[in-house]
Amino acid sequence: MEFLMEPIGIIRTPFDDRKGMPIQPRFSQAVGLVEVFEEYAQGLQDLEGFSHVILLYALHRSSGYALRVRPYLDDVERGLFATRHPCRPNPIGLSIVRLLSCRDQVLEVEGIDVLDGTPLLDIKPYVPDFDARPDARAGWYDHRPTDRDGYS
Amino acid sequence: MEFLMEPIGIIRTPFDDRKGMPIQPRFSQAVGLVEVFEEYAQGLQDLEGFSHVILLYALHRSSGYALRVRPYLDDVERGLFATRHPCRPNPIGLSIVRLLSCRDQVLEVEGIDVLDGTPLLDIKPYVPDFDARPDARAGWYDHRPTDRDGYS
Repeated sequence: MEFLMEPIGIIRTPFDDRKGMPIQPRFSQAVGLVEVFEEYAQGLQDLEGFSHVILLYALHRSSGYALRVRPYLDDVERGLFATRHPCRPNPIGLSIVRLLSCRDQVLEVEGIDVLDGTPLLDIKPYVPDFDARPDARAGWYDHRPTDRDGYS
Repeated sequence: MEFLMEPIGIIRTPFDDRKGMPIQPRFSQAVGLVEVFEEYAQGLQDLEGFSHVILLYALHRSSGYALRVRPYLDDVERGLFATRHPCRPNPIGLSIVRLLSCRDQVLEVEGIDVLDGTPLLDIKPYVPDFDARPDARAGWYDHRPTDRDGYS
């Protein structure tokens, strides 16, 4: 069973390579542009009422994967699925970003943490009732070394 | 540019069809089993410290899409990307579920809202620092009719 995914747009960001890129939106005030292809523009209606959106995208510069990896924010190897490492069997990235504006097929977003030119796969509205679990326990992340600045 | 995705496991749930299935994990106490294929088992290490995980999966029984849809929880049509409707250009579903246990390649999860047999594409740890935005504004969802019970 295979599933073929095709970009619905392109994400423009200030980041040409991973060095210096924030590793999660929460550590970033960087502004990016999510350019949705014209054929999908009508699907963006009603998004402007949402303060945050979920971006799903292809981690297009990742290749291969290991099942144990050292996360950026930790010193020891962890199981891949217990990390947000970009090299995964299905290289789908997920970022929650603040929606600043939405016009003419372009979303201006804040808190972007992806490489310039990243292929967009989907946009979903962020709904706190579905998506916010502020009291969740976060395993090794809760006990990580605290001298990291959130940048790779 | 195309991206080929292949399942890394199968999600077992009590739901054989959409009728009677909760439309979001938040409305569900249903327990499901996420059976990860043996070749990926090592990647599950360290997950048990997390109380919640993000499941990405193929919406394998969806076919085609419309750019304007009527959400289950609303009476009017909305732009597709402002909804969580399952028929999308790239049919990737996302659910945040509580992790009850993780052993022998099988995650027992609570709050599942997908059809039995759904192909699993990725598991990511839920990290409140990255993923929780409890104060986010949710557009039309915040103003939806309030007589809905969250079931389709």
